[in-house]
Order: sequence, then C-alpha cells, then structure tokens
Amino acid sequence: MSALQTSPVEEEREKILSLYARTRSRTEELASPLSAEDQQLQSMPDTSPVKWHRAHTTWFFEAFVLEPEGVAPFDPRYAFLFNSYYEAAGPRHARPKRGLLSRPGAREVGDYRRAVDERVSRLVAGADAARLARVLPILELGVAHEEQHQELILTDLLHAFSQNPLLPPYVGPAAVEVNGDGDPASPPRFIGYEGGLHEVGAPEGIFAFDNERPRHKVWVEPFKLADRLVTVSDLIAFVRDGGYRTPSLWLSEGFDFVRAQGIEAPLYASFDGGVVTTFTLQGSRQLPASAPVVHLSYYEADAIARYMGARLPTEVEWEVAAARAPVAGNFLDDGRLHPVARPRSQPSGVSQLFGDAWEWTSSSYDPYPGYFPPEGALGEYNGKFMVSQKVLRGGSCLSPRRHVRASYRNFWYPATRFQMTGLRLARNV
Amino acid sequence: MSALQTSPVEEEREKILSLYARTRSRTEELASPLSAEDQQLQSMPDTSPVKWHRAHTTWFFEAFVLEPEGVAPFDPRYAFLFNSYYEAAGPRHARPKRGLLSRPGAREVGDYRRAVDERVSRLVAGADAARLARVLPILELGVAHEEQHQELILTDLLHAFSQNPLLPPYVGPAAVEVNGDGDPASPPRFIGYEGGLHEVGAPEGIFAFDNERPRHKVWVEPFKLADRLVTVSDLIAFVRDGGYRTPSLWLSEGFDFVRAQGIEAPLYASFDGGVVTTFTLQGSRQLPASAPVVHLSYYEADAIARYMGARLPTEVEWEVAAARAPVAGNFLDDGRLHPVARPRSQPSGVSQLFGDAWEWTSSSYDPYPGYFPPEGALGEYNGKFMVSQKVLRGGSCLSPRRHVRASYRNFWYPATRFQMTGLRLARNV
Amino acid sequence: MSALQTSPVEEEREKILSLYARTRSRTEELASPLSAEDQQLQSMPDTSPVKWHRAHTTWFFEAFVLEPEGVAPFDPRYAFLFNSYYEAAGPRHARPKRGLLSRPGAREVGDYRRAVDERVSRLVAGADAARLARVLPILELGVAHEEQHQELILTDLLHAFSQNPLLPPYVGPAAVEVNGDGDPASPPRFIGYEGGLHEVGAPEGIFAFDNERPRHKVWVEPFKLADRLVTVSDLIAFVRDGGYRTPSLWLSEGFDFVRAQGIEAPLYASFDGGVVTTFTLQGSRQLPASAPVVHLSYYEADAIARYMGARLPTEVEWEVAAARAPVAGNFLDDGRLHPVARPRSQPSGVSQLFGDAWEWTSSSYDPYPGYFPPEGALGEYNGKFMVSQKVLRGGSCLSPRRHVRASYRNFWYPATRFQMTGLRLARNV
Amino acid sequence: MSALQTSPVEEEREKILSLYARTRSRTEELASPLSAEDQQLQSMPDTSPVKWHRAHTTWFFEAFVLEPEGVAPFDPRYAFLFNSYYEAAGPRHARPKRGLLSRPGAREVGDYRRAVDERVSRLVAGADAARLARVLPILELGVAHEEQHQELILTDLLHAFSQNPLLPPYVGPAAVEVNGDGDPASPPRFIGYEGGLHEVGAPEGIFAFDNERPRHKVWVEPFKLADRLVTVSDLIAFVRDGGYRTPSLWLSEGFDFVRAQGIEAPLYASFDGGVVTTFTLQGSRQLPASAPVVHLSYYEADAIARYMGARLPTEVEWEVAAARAPVAGNFLDDGRLHPVARPRSQPSGVSQLFGDAWEWTSSSYDPYPGYFPPEGALGEYNGKFMVSQKVLRGGSCLSPRRHVRASYRNFWYPATRFQMTGLRLARNV
Repeated sequence: MSALQTSPVEEEREKILSLYARTRSRTEELASPLSAEDQQLQSMPDTSPVKWHRAHTTWFFEAFVLEPEGVAPFDPRYAFLFNSYYEAAGPRHARPKRGLLSRPGAREVGDYRRAVDERVSRLVAGADAARLARVLPILELGVAHEEQHQELILTDLLHAFSQNPLLPPYVGPAAVEVNGDGDPASPPRFIGYEGGLHEVGAPEGIFAFDNERPRHKVWVEPFKLADRLVTVSDLIAFVRDGGYRTPSLWLSEGFDFVRAQGIEAPLYASFDGGVVTTFTLQGSRQLPASAPVVHLSYYEADAIARYMGARLPTEVEWEVAAARAPVAGNFLDDGRLHPVARPRSQPSGVSQLFGDAWEWTSSSYDPYPGYFPPEGALGEYNGKFMVSQKVLRGGSCLSPRRHVRASYRNFWYPATRFQMTGLRLARNV
Repeated sequence: MSALQTSPVEEEREKILSLYARTRSRTEELASPLSAEDQQLQSMPDTSPVKWHRAHTTWFFEAFVLEPEGVAPFDPRYAFLFNSYYEAAGPRHARPKRGLLSRPGAREVGDYRRAVDERVSRLVAGADAARLARVLPILELGVAHEEQHQELILTDLLHAFSQNPLLPPYVGPAAVEVNGDGDPASPPRFIGYEGGLHEVGAPEGIFAFDNERPRHKVWVEPFKLADRLVTVSDLIAFVRDGGYRTPSLWLSEGFDFVRAQGIEAPLYASFDGGVVTTFTLQGSRQLPASAPVVHLSYYEADAIARYMGARLPTEVEWEVAAARAPVAGNFLDDGRLHPVARPRSQPSGVSQLFGDAWEWTSSSYDPYPGYFPPEGALGEYNGKFMVSQKVLRGGSCLSPRRHVRASYRNFWYPATRFQMTGLRLARNV
Repeated sequence: MSALQTSPVEEEREKILSLYARTRSRTEELASPLSAEDQQLQSMPDTSPVKWHRAHTTWFFEAFVLEPEGVAPFDPRYAFLFNSYYEAAGPRHARPKRGLLSRPGAREVGDYRRAVDERVSRLVAGADAARLARVLPILELGVAHEEQHQELILTDLLHAFSQNPLLPPYVGPAAVEVNGDGDPASPPRFIGYEGGLHEVGAPEGIFAFDNERPRHKVWVEPFKLADRLVTVSDLIAFVRDGGYRTPSLWLSEGFDFVRAQGIEAPLYASFDGGVVTTFTLQGSRQLPASAPVVHLSYYEADAIARYMGARLPTEVEWEVAAARAPVAGNFLDDGRLHPVARPRSQPSGVSQLFGDAWEWTSSSYDPYPGYFPPEGALGEYNGKFMVSQKVLRGGSCLSPRRHVRASYRNFWYPATRFQMTGLRLARNV
Repeated sequence: MSALQTSPVEEEREKILSLYARTRSRTEELASPLSAEDQQLQSMPDTSPVKWHRAHTTWFFEAFVLEPEGVAPFDPRYAFLFNSYYEAAGPRHARPKRGLLSRPGAREVGDYRRAVDERVSRLVAGADAARLARVLPILELGVAHEEQHQELILTDLLHAFSQNPLLPPYVGPAAVEVNGDGDPASPPRFIGYEGGLHEVGAPEGIFAFDNERPRHKVWVEPFKLADRLVTVSDLIAFVRDGGYRTPSLWLSEGFDFVRAQGIEAPLYASFDGGVVTTFTLQGSRQLPASAPVVHLSYYEADAIARYMGARLPTEVEWEVAAARAPVAGNFLDDGRLHPVARPRSQPSGVSQLFGDAWEWTSSSYDPYPGYFPPEGALGEYNGKFMVSQKVLRGGSCLSPRRHVRASYRNFWYPATRFQMTGLRLARNV
C-alpha cells in the first residue's frame, strides 16, 4: 500500500465531511432568500420558524456528536431553546412559542451554525478510528435529520406566507415550470402486483431510520396500483359532484373534520368556475389539470379514493411496488418546489412513486414486528410517535433526492394538510 | 315428516323470537334499579343517557327491520332524536345534547320499547319465508347491537355516577364478590406461541360483524403471551416507581395526555399509602391487589407494558392464542360487574382471555385486506370508524357472554378510559 | 289593652310565617307541572336545574336561619351540593355540573323542603323576642331570595326546553293571552323629566337589598323617556334594515359578539317573511307586533336604541321616573308568563315601567357612594358581583309583584339573553 | 402689521408641523434599539408588533388626513393591513395575526413612514386657510393617537420580551434609576376633599378626546385620597397575609380569574423570601419596597384596596383632586421607563397623581351625560368601547408628558395586566 492510497477510514472521513458540508450549505441556501423577519414566522403550533430549524439542526449535532465527545456548548442556554422533543436531553422551550424568540436573531443563528460546523469538522478531522466509529453513525443520522428539516423549512414557510394577505412568493413565479405535458383527461391505469409472502423494511448495510426495521415477512394479497398520482382534474370531478358534502364517501372522523373546519378544497386551493388557484412557494398560481393534487389530509385522500371507486394502498403494497423502481422523480434538488404532471412521454408503467408528493397509505404508523427503539435520547427519534398517525411513502418535490428510499416511512396525523401530501389509488384484484 | 315436526323455518323463527325477547328484557332489567333522573344523565359527550340507549336500540329495530317492511313509526319525531350516527338514515340530534331530553321521559321510552317489541313479534310471527329471510339477519344484527349498548349502559352510568359527590352505587356492595383467590405476588408467566402463516377473522357460517371479515392469512413471528391480565399489584409498582412521571416509558402523545389532564392513576382510582380505592358499580371500593386493573387508556396500558419489560400484543397474536380457547370467563351474565382475580385453582396456562377486561392491543383499527362495508345505512356500522382507534379484544365483565368470540374486534380512541379496559403483556421470542 | 289584642311581636311573627308559607308554596306550584326529569335539566353553566333551585333556596334558610340558631342540618352533605357561591359557607359543587345530580331526586328534594319548612315554622313559632329579632331580617331576605329563584326557575327551564327538538311547552298555549290591544304602528312618545339634584336608592324602613343603599344624591340633566317598551314591530324594522349587520350601530364588543355567535335575532326568535316566531313557556308562538321584544342582550338593546335615534336610560333616570309611578303591571302573579302589549285603553303617560320586561339601563353595576357589604357570608349576596355587569330595572312578567320596587337593581352580564330582558328608549332634552 | 409678523394661521401651521415632526421622531427613537425581528413580535392577541404600531399610526394620517384631501395612498394594500378597528374605513387584517406579517419589513415600514411624513408636511405647508382648518384638528388627533401608541409600543414589547427565556432588556439596567429615596415603612396618609356639586370633564378650548366631554356637573360626597401610590411594600404584606387566596377580599369574577390563571403575584413579578423580582424594560430587577406596584389587574387593585381597609377612588373623585394639581411626575420623557418611589423630600400632600402608574378607578367606562360620538370613522375612536371596561387616570412612566391631563380617561378590561397599572387608595369620610 503506497502512501498515495487513501485508507478506508480516510475515505469514510472524507465522505462524511463532504456530505456534512453539502447538507449544511443547502440549509443555508434554502434560508438565503428570506429576511430575518421571514425566518421568525411561526404560523401555527405544528410549524416552526426557519431560524429555529436552522438552530435546532445545529443543536442536534452539538448535543449528540460534540457534547458526548467533551466539546463545550456554544451557548449553554441554546439547549433549552433548540431541543425539539428529546426528554432525555433536558427541559425545553414550549413549541407553540418558537415564533416569539426574536433573540437570538437570524444572524446570531448563522454564527452558531458556523461555530458548530467548524467544531464538527475539527472533531472529525482529528478523530482516531475509535472516535470516528462512534461519531460517524450519529453524523449520518444528523445529516438525515437535517434533510428532514430542509423539507419542513419550506412547508412551514409556505404556511406562514399563506397567512400574509400580500401572499408573498418564496421564489419568483418565472423560476420554475410545473405544467409538464400530462394528459388530464385519461383516467389512471392500474398495474397488477402479485400476492404472496413478501419481505419489507430496510435491508442491513445501508443507512435507514430505526422505524424501517427490522426487515420482516408479510403476507400480501394480489393488488393493483394506479400508474400515476391523483390529479387536479380528479379533484375537480370530486368537488363538482359535491364530494366534500357527501357523508357516505368519508370516514366519520373525516367528515366531522371537514364540516367543523368548513373545508371545501385542499389547503391553499380555491375553486372559481372550474379553475383551481393554489398558493405555492412561487406565489398564487393556476395549476394545470394534470398536476398532482397536494395539501390533502388523510381524510380527503381516503374520500377521493372512495369516490374514484378505489382505495388507498397499504404501506406494504406500496413498498412491494417501489422496491423494484429506481429512486427517480421531482425532488428538492430539481428546484421546482411543486409537483409536476406525469409527462406524456413517460413510458407506460407505474410512475411518480418517488418525489412530487408524499402518498398517504391506509396503514397506521405502528412498529414493525420485533421493533425496539435504540437506547438513550436518540431512541426518542421515531418510536415514541407510533400512535394515531398514518404512514406516507415516496418523498416529495421538497425532499432531497438522497433522503428517500423504498423503505422510507414518513408519518403524519390524518388531519395534516400543510405538508406536500397527495395520493395514489389502489384496488383489490 | 309428521305434522308434529317443526320445519327449519319455524325453528329459526322461534329461535330469533326467543333471542330477541331475552335481549330486550335484559336491557330493561339493567335499567330497572335506576330512577327516571338517573336514566337521563349524560356526563360527557362520549357517553349517552341510559334512557337514550333504551330508545336508540329500539329505533334501530324500527328503522332497519320494521320500516323497510312498511310498518309506520311509533312517533315520526323519534328518528331525529334516537338515530346515533347513520347519515343515510337522515338528520339527527346533536350527540352532546342527549342529556337535555327530559321528554320523552323514561316511562314513555318504556311505552316505545313495548310497542316496537309487539310490532317486531307480530311481523316475525306472521312473516312468510321470503320476509323472514330478509329480516332475520337484521334482527340478529339488532340483537348484537343491543348487546353492545347493554355494556355501554353500565359504563356510561358509572361515569355519570362518578360525577355525583354522593358517589351512589348502581347495586349494593354486598351483592357481588370481586376478590377471588388470586396470588398478587407471583409475576405473570409467559406462554409461547408458534409463528408462521396463520388465518384470522370470522369464519363463514356464524354471525359476526363486518369488521371481522374477510378471514385472511397473516404471517406471524413467534411470540409469548402472559398467562393473566395485569393486576392492581402491577399497577402499584408502576405508580411507586414514578411511572406516570417518567417520559421514557411513554408514547409522546400519551405523556402529553397524562400531563395535560393531570392523570396519576387509572380513571376512578386513587392511591393512599399503597391502598387503591376505586369507584365501581358497587360504589367506592378497595380492590385486592390480585384484581385486574381497568379503566386505563391505551397510553397507560402501553406505558405499563413497557415498564414491565414487555409490550402489548397485536390483535393477530391475541386471536391466534384465543382461537384455541373456550369463550369462558367473568361476563355480564355473572353479575359481578367488575373484573375478578384469576383463581389460584386455575389450571396452568393462559387465562382471562375472555371476559373481565377488554385487552388493549397494539394494533390500529384498520380494515382487513379485502374489506368493504355493506351497502346502505348499515354499511356505516363499522367501516367509517376505521381511523385513529386501537383494537381491543376479549370482552369484559360487562359484556354479555353470547356477544363475544375470538374474532371480535372492539375499538376505542387511545385516550378512552371510561370503558372496562385493561391489558395483557406480550413479548417477542 | 284587652287579651284579644295581638301584640306587635305576634303580628310580626304571624306576618313572616304567612309570607314564608306563601313563598315556599309558590315555588312548589311552579315546579308542579314538571316531571322529575324536567327538573334535572341544566342546559348551560349559567342556568340551574329546577330541582336545584328548590333545594338551594331551602339550604339558604338552613344555613342562615336554622344553623346559627343551633338546628342540625337535614343532611350534612347538602351544604356542599346546594351552596351556590357563598365562599364563607364552605366548599361547594361545581356550578356547571348541577345537571349531573340525579340523586337526591326531585322527590327527596320535596322531603328536604318540607322538613326545613317545618323546622323554620317551629323555630319562629317558639322564638322569644330576641331570637325573633335575629331571624326576622334573615327570613325576609330568604323570602326575597326565593322570589329571585322563582323567576330563575322559569327562565332556566325555558332555556332547557328550547334545547329539546320537541319544543315542549311549560303550560298549554290556551292558558294565557299575550296579544293585548296595542297599536304597533304608533311610534313611542317621549315624556320629559326635569333635571337637577335628585335622590335615589331605597329609603330606610322598608326591606331592600344592600345594593339599593345608601340612598344618595345625584345630579341629573333633563331627559326624556319613551312611554312604552320597544316592541316586536320596532325589532322587525331593525332587522329589515340590516341592523344586525351594520357595525356603526353597535358597541365594538357587541358586534364581535353577534358575529362570533351568528346572532341575527333575539334569543328564541326567528324571522320568516315578516312573521316573528318565538319559543315561550307556552311553546312556539307567533307574537303580535305590539308585544314588547325580549331576550335581548345589552348589546342588542344598545344597538336598537341607537338605530331608533335614541339611547338607553341611565338607572338614575329610570328611577327618577319610576319613583312617582305605582308598582303595577304584568307580573308572575298574573300567570301570563310573557310580556303583553301596552293596552290602547292605557291613559297617556309612561307605561310598562314595572313588570313585562326587565329594562336594560346604560349604567354599569357599580356600588352606590358609601356602599359597604354586610359582615359575614350574607355580605357576598350582592357586593362581590359589582363589576362587568349592567343594571336592569323594573321587573318582568316572571317576577313576583311583591318583589319589585322603584329602587330595585337587577344586574346581568351584557351578553345575557336568556332572561326576560327588553328595553325602553331615552333621549337627551 | 408689518410683513415680518407671523399671522395666526402661520403660527398654527408652524406649531402643528413642529409637533407632528417631534412626535413622529420619538416613535422612531423608541423603535431604534430594536432589531427587525424584535419589531415583529406579537405575544398575545391584545398586543401588536412594534412594526405594526409604526405602520398603523402612519396609516391613521394617511386615512384621515391625506386621503380626504385627495392624496393617493402609498400602497393601496396597507389600509387592509394597518387599519386597527375602524369599520367605516373598510375591512382589515385579523388582529391576532399581526405578528405573522414579515412583509412589509421594518425597513419598508420606515419607508412608509418617511413617505407619509413628507406628504403630510407638503400638504400642511401648502394648505390654504380652509384646508388648514380641516386638517389641523385631525393632525392634532393623529398626534395624540400616536402618543398612545408610543406607550403601547413599550408595553407590548415588554410582554413579548417576557416570553423569551433569555429575558432580553430593552435598555441596559444601568441606564436608569428607579429607587428614589422613598420610605416604604410609612403608611399612606389620607388627604380630605370636600363634597358637593363639582364639574368634571375637559373644558372647551383645549385638545381633548371626545370621551372627556361634555364637561358636566356631578354630586360628590366628601372623600379622602392617599398621598401616594400603593407600593411593593404594601403588596408584600398582602401576599404574606395570603391575599391572593382569601376570597372575602375579592370580587367574585376576580377570584375566579386569579384561581383559573394561577395568579399569585402581579404580572412579571415573583416572590422569593420577601424579595420581589420583576421583569422590566431594563431586564429582570429587584425593586425597592418603596416603588409603586404595577402590572395589576383591576381585580387585584380592588382586592389590595379592600385588604388595606380602603377602596379605589371613583374617576370623579380622582379628577376633583387632580384638577388642582400640576401635570408633573415621572413620564416617558424622563426615560426611567418604570415607576419610581415618592421622594422623601416631597412636600407633604398628594403626590404621584400624574405619571408613574395608571391608577385604576372604581368607575366603569360609561359615556358622560350628553355624550355623542363624532360623525364618520373617527366616531369609532372611543365611543364604541364604552362597555365592560374600567377607567384609569393619571398617565404612567411610559406616557408622554404632553399627552396627559386631569380630564384624561384611559380604559382597559378589568383583567388587563400588561399595562403600567397601579392604584391609589380612597376612603369615605
């Protein structure tokens, strides 16, 4: 072995440092079009200010990488402010009050980020093999964590901007093209999948969240999946037929929800004589009929599927289909920031499994057989949320491409509408 | 065939008339110790007055048996008052306001019941084979429906009486014996079950609710179940160890729930120096340490299981175990009205699967593969509630014995505490 | 002085015993058309069940007359259940939960009333002059207190019955006549009153509540009062002109109130093509245009007055006018149970000052100069409510005639609508 | 008259331009220590962001001075965003969402202010006598309006900063001196005032708000006023004696309020072994016992007065006393930003009537006899709030000295605590 050869340890060190740097930069790029005031907005308890996301992801590296290795915190008061929900990591600021923190300001949060980045780089650069073995998995987790918050930065900002009567855009409308060349008139075609004993869940040897494991056997009946996401055109038919006011299409809880909230369209959308106008990160826009419909609650997704003579897929059915497909589609990296229509030029077969819109599945977010959360504070990452939520699959136009995989389980409450949530139809054979 | 022989049609006619009469009488017996004022109590939106249960179960037979056969309603205004949630059966009175109906009075509701009973009996007695074929399944469903409300009559009344500072008993304390001869000190023993491809769900040919079907295959990993329910003794250990204040034992939503509500004991229970006092249908009582603990939310059941180094079973695991066991235990028919300890004399093996306490499972209340609700208003019976709830299994000391079976799926929101809800531990192998 | 003459002490004794007996009987007569279930209804936190009123007025005599004289309570647990708001008299049951007390039942409350009546009668009959001097003022207060609750029994029941879709009447519609022979077309005439230094408040030597004292001087500018109450006809004009939707007519708080609650008519009233239908103690009725309008919040009364180019009178103006008028009008004693139109035959001049409808004044319920509440629990009777409320004057068709006088100050929150509240116009000179 | 002489019109023109410029500058000075993020904070619906105050006061001049004179708006969308409550001036943004307006930013609001200032100056400079006569009273009102918002800028910011766990100060603690040389041990002395027929309200010929008029006669009984405000020392005695938990000291509504909110000290204050720490605009501070107590609700003020064997003065009593006193004291102009103790060197007699703390009076905020609001949108300035509130008198350490006078009526809901509210004792003679 010559001195020019890089050892495997060095390769890993380089790889993680590069990944860390790229991820951290992208967060700052996402925040860069925003004023300090924009970054402070918190428009409901479910969302957080952009500035808070920037600080919280930084605290994550401080608390779980630097602190266990003996590095003193940048500011001892920040743990209280920027811990999200880790009970084992100590007390924390009330979530609905994150928008009331004018101090530290956006600029100070930038200082915090740079200081932690420098400490992490120094730590990794100088780590011996033992330390590297300890910190690498946490760094990898921290990067995946920050990728999740990159999506949240945009969904939370979209909600905040939607509350401003001036309806400010995050990026100019000319910047992106959402129309595609899809054919709204054609109904979805259904692709058949074989039943039998399948295996689902993340295989060993790759990074995955704990909730994707253990990989396990599941018996699946034969099923069919639509070849595309449900579109604005499908939504218009549902609305025109009085779908939002027809109780027989709805789960009881769902019908109560839309009645109590006065919901008659997806979040951010309004109807005017067959034209759908939606508030997006490019401001208020008319969407083509072929665009995937998003900002639906589980209840709406379930009702639309029922209206279309179909149902939502289970998460297992979705994974069986997706396991064979490449992770390709419209992601954050593409910069469109909104789902686009399936291209006409698309070869026949299932499409849009990845990117565009998170797909509601009919599966409740339960632990996989044999699941136990890791020890310590990081055991709180996923396990303690396994109740009352529904699984979504496939990533969205706001997810980093690197972040998504066939076994990836996203989860939200059925009433959630501010995420980039859509649906795909399924049927029994 | 001689003239003395009863034809199969006549046998069915007799059987259903007898079952109908017995069920209807039992409801009236349950209400008989109560004053008209007692029967009007509604102590929270989730519960209903006893009088309302008596009227609603009657309306069910009117709306789904008599009306389709052309029998005019007893009082046309009752459909509005006593429809529970059937959108297809027309508009209805607001659920939280059921306690505000002083008219019709308990006596008039008795008149209503007798009139409908007479009409049903006359209809069945005079029905030809075709009509009988139509009404028999609905009558069977109506009886099962009324059995469900018999349990609710008691759980709702218990909650209402718990709100009265005088803590009135439903029946005298001397009437029943809950102590049993159980041994509180012995920890539960775990019984192993084999994994593999199992079938669950109600088989054809017996009465079952739609949500128990279709029977279907499931892959199950090997598992172990505790031989008894979790007891007051187990609860005391949990409380003494600060279980209600230890976030690492809880689902996040559960810990928020108990903190927000200030919960430090199961509903109706209080601790005083190791003695647990509970409000029961026999009034306020000290419970033996060997008695099964009840009135737990899903969150508490989940936390207690985690504290005890175990987990809740899935509904499939429970059914695999219960499918082999006889439907025997402490039911409404036994008149104890509270769970009793597992007898020491009990042969070794799993016990208390049926009766005593509904057992929370970790399974969300999702539809079985291939499930579709029936057409018409009765399709609303179960299907539209399949979201956000958890499955419970096995029946309770307030369930009619006839009502329960291995495939039976009860379901409640995870925050529910006023039902007779307990738990059994499970473990991976 | 012959032996046949009654001494003054004996006269007082007879007088109070007779007044006590008459008052207590009237309460029972008011409850007599009601079932036990009717008497248990509590339809909002502001109201109480009829049964509770019957028990609370009884507890008042027990707590403040019998107990200080050493008479043991009928049931020691009743103080907790039937104390309304006297902090000095010990802890008490939560007000919004009064409707959850099925025990004691209406019959047991009757037993309680009879037992206390007997004890009070015995105590008074056997009292020496010293004891008589102590208990007489409290008995007089207790009678006035029970008269207040007689009005509340009916207003609370009306609200409770309004929640029942069957809209049951308290008394049959044929029982009473509310039409009168008033002329709805004629606008109110205004009567002038002189300004200057006036005295208001109850004079010494008669029974009055503490809040009517001390009598004191007030400087009053000249003013004018309408000769009649505002009528249904006036209301129709207000509604037709969009009064409920015209912010310039309203106090800011009032406009927020009607918008938030979706109020477009007085409580219990609805409009259909110029016809006003109102739920009353005689059931649902069409009211003549000449009938006084009632069930108005202060906000509505204030807006209607502004719409009519006038204002509400101050309580001092009202008292200056009423001090010269006889206490005559449509009271509870007349059994009409709803306001009636001013008769055409009425001699010219101000009318309807007493009875028919409580008149909102523009005066806030502040203490009179020099006011101090009495010592002890009875000091809580009025003084501690002197904030955030408005004064009403004159009594209503549900007030006992004996109960009302020119100096009488009723008070309710401005949002109150379930009382028999109306208005009279005033103007500056 | 020589050409060098300034005509009265020119004098008025100069005077108002100078006053306008000084007032507008002071607002900007108040905002100058704050970051853009600080200026966006809205910590409860009752408060507004600093930036919003800056824009709203600007809109006021635009809407009521410029627009009627034909000057086009700076940005036509701002009327919607920055109208506070003027129904006649069109629809407006929801008050609780003012903190969600990141756009326009603080800098753009500065542009808006400068543009409007320039337009106002140009308008006034070029106005003929007729136009000047029209705009001068509105300019004077607009200046008084902006002075009110100067106080609100500081009270709202204080509340917002109190929500930040870092407890940031608005100005450094060394900047001001609040201790004074007061003697906390000495009880207040009471000064007697004569009763009789007094006149209160603003006289003609000076600027005053409509709610201070008409000046009118009132009969007043003789009374006594304490020579100083109630102090921290008085508060400590109240707290030590369990004042917050003694129902007999409280209005019923007040005791419910402190119990429901868990209030045991004035807002921002906490007790630790006799030391009172308070969050102020200088950050967290220990206050001297002789400092006036502030941040009290009406309920607390009323209870403390009762505890001290006194009562709150009526607004008329206060004005009778203040009419003879010079408008001198601790105002915004002094830059202390917190009440200071009465100096020992103070000559005997009543002190602190003006400045330091707004004094709760027992008077409800009712219209004066003969009051009618002005025509048009400016009629909404005061009149429509005349219900459910209490009058406060005298100005505070955050009020501009110029703004306050003896007839000035401030008003807040009795539950208000975030204002600079204190109390002075009164007694009957």
